[in-house]
Amino acid sequence: MIGIFDSGIGGLTVVRAIKKRLPRHDIIYLGDTARTPYGNKTPETVVKYALENTDFLIKKGAKIIVMACNTASSVAFDAVKKNFDAPIFEVISPAVASALSRPQSKNAKKTAQKKTSPKETSPKETNKAHFIGVIGTQATIKSGVYERKIKEIQPDAHVFSNACPLLVPLVEEGWLNRPETRMIVKKYLHPLKTRQINTLILGCTHYPVLKDLIQKKIGHRVVIVDSPGSSAAAIADYLDARPDLDSELEKNGDLRLYASDLTPQFEKTAKIILKQNPLFQRV
Amino acid sequence: MIGIFDSGIGGLTVVRAIKKRLPRHDIIYLGDTARTPYGNKTPETVVKYALENTDFLIKKGAKIIVMACNTASSVAFDAVKKNFDAPIFEVISPAVASALSRPQSKNAKKTAQKKTSPKETSPKETNKAHFIGVIGTQATIKSGVYERKIKEIQPDAHVFSNACPLLVPLVEEGWLNRPETRMIVKKYLHPLKTRQINTLILGCTHYPVLKDLIQKKIGHRVVIVDSPGSSAAAIADYLDARPDLDSELEKNGDLRLYASDLTPQFEKTAKIILKQNPLFQRV
Repeated sequence: MIGIFDSGIGGLTVVRAIKKRLPRHDIIYLGDTARTPYGNKTPETVVKYALENTDFLIKKGAKIIVMACNTASSVAFDAVKKNFDAPIFEVISPAVASALSRPQSKNAKKTAQKKTSPKETSPKETNKAHFIGVIGTQATIKSGVYERKIKEIQPDAHVFSNACPLLVPLVEEGWLNRPETRMIVKKYLHPLKTRQINTLILGCTHYPVLKDLIQKKIGHRVVIVDSPGSSAAAIADYLDARPDLDSELEKNGDLRLYASDLTPQFEKTAKIILKQNPLFQRV
Repeated sequence: MIGIFDSGIGGLTVVRAIKKRLPRHDIIYLGDTARTPYGNKTPETVVKYALENTDFLIKKGAKIIVMACNTASSVAFDAVKKNFDAPIFEVISPAVASALSRPQSKNAKKTAQKKTSPKETSPKETNKAHFIGVIGTQATIKSGVYERKIKEIQPDAHVFSNACPLLVPLVEEGWLNRPETRMIVKKYLHPLKTRQINTLILGCTHYPVLKDLIQKKIGHRVVIVDSPGSSAAAIADYLDARPDLDSELEKNGDLRLYASDLTPQFEKTAKIILKQNPLFQRV
């Protein structure tokens, strides 16, 4: 089975994307709703939780682990990798690769076309196309992991980050397109907009639910990259290249859902994300 | 020692109030910041956490326990009382008693004075003065505890409640007087305002930090009642009546602060509430 965990419900966006790419692979999911959210906790605490969640999934029969939580991916990946033999996936590298592989946005192209002096063909000017914005939780942004991973591949990229601590509660509250939500999203995106980013990474698995609103506020020239799709593609590619491992994975199309706490609000939002009535078992 | 716990930082408003009433009594505080918030979790989970927190404080030497968290007070008081011998205090009953003991608000008086028909002197009309609004977390409001406790004392009281799940994250984010916060507070209070409440209970230890804004939005005729002051008074009265127990409590004016997680944001907000540099130990 493919084992996936998140601090709560956001990781179900990754489950949805993996089910779309690998519909027959059995999936086991754990939402740590009893201790959610992770984004406002210390790395030390998040590492502890990530190790416990991984242990739970491995004991339930998971052969590969997906950390479908940007906060856990940001601060706990090394610790989880060190402590378990199974292949471990995080959701940050696929989003970074996807952001860097996109053709320059229209905005950047337009700017480049306008200027006809020799200057803009210099490497410095060309690199200007990589103006990448990143939004995420306090813990993710504070870890600096996106900037680090982007610069490992593209050292001249410009990265601008902003922590958006209210977006997770807004999504969980179901306030997806209220005036208050629009104001808060606008405020969080403002510093990135003034930097004229051409790519925006949604560095939290909750944010895809707000994608339309975020696109509207950041402007339609900015390419939005989110983790679920790119992470699912990375896992499919990995298994394609390792038929031995892939043959070990059960393929009945099963989805087993576990949660450490189960409120009606959680089940309601899970239903919206999965587009089906989810049957959770409490652990 | 007086042992006090909360899901996080909100309970420090209770610490502040108790220190004001009983400045020499030693206090030990536990903020369960590693699992905060409680307000969006199930009663089952909150009971488990409340029992663990109480056990921690008792083992550290607490002789009486204050559950300085409305969510825990709402759903876990009976379980904690059953499992421990020490006197246990919750923060709901004192606020309810305070709300019901207030003289009728100006608003209600004015309405009564205006009408001069015999009708308004009937018991039904007199009881109209008790139009009480309650705001709190999802878990607190869903428990119905405020309504139940109010009606035990004043069966004819009218109680209107509204859950305000975004207020805790807004306080923790430090967005105390931003336009977004003002909009959200206005929206949450609107259904209570249309019911013409004359008293508003702040049913969450985080909310006193937003008291001025809440007063402005609900209107200056509405009397606002919060738990910290009334809870501190209840504890002082209790100890006054039990000199034997009181003599057992150490009185060096010490304040020992523990937290299950320690982020800079947590320490910053703790400093705002306590008006001093807090020294937390991590557990």
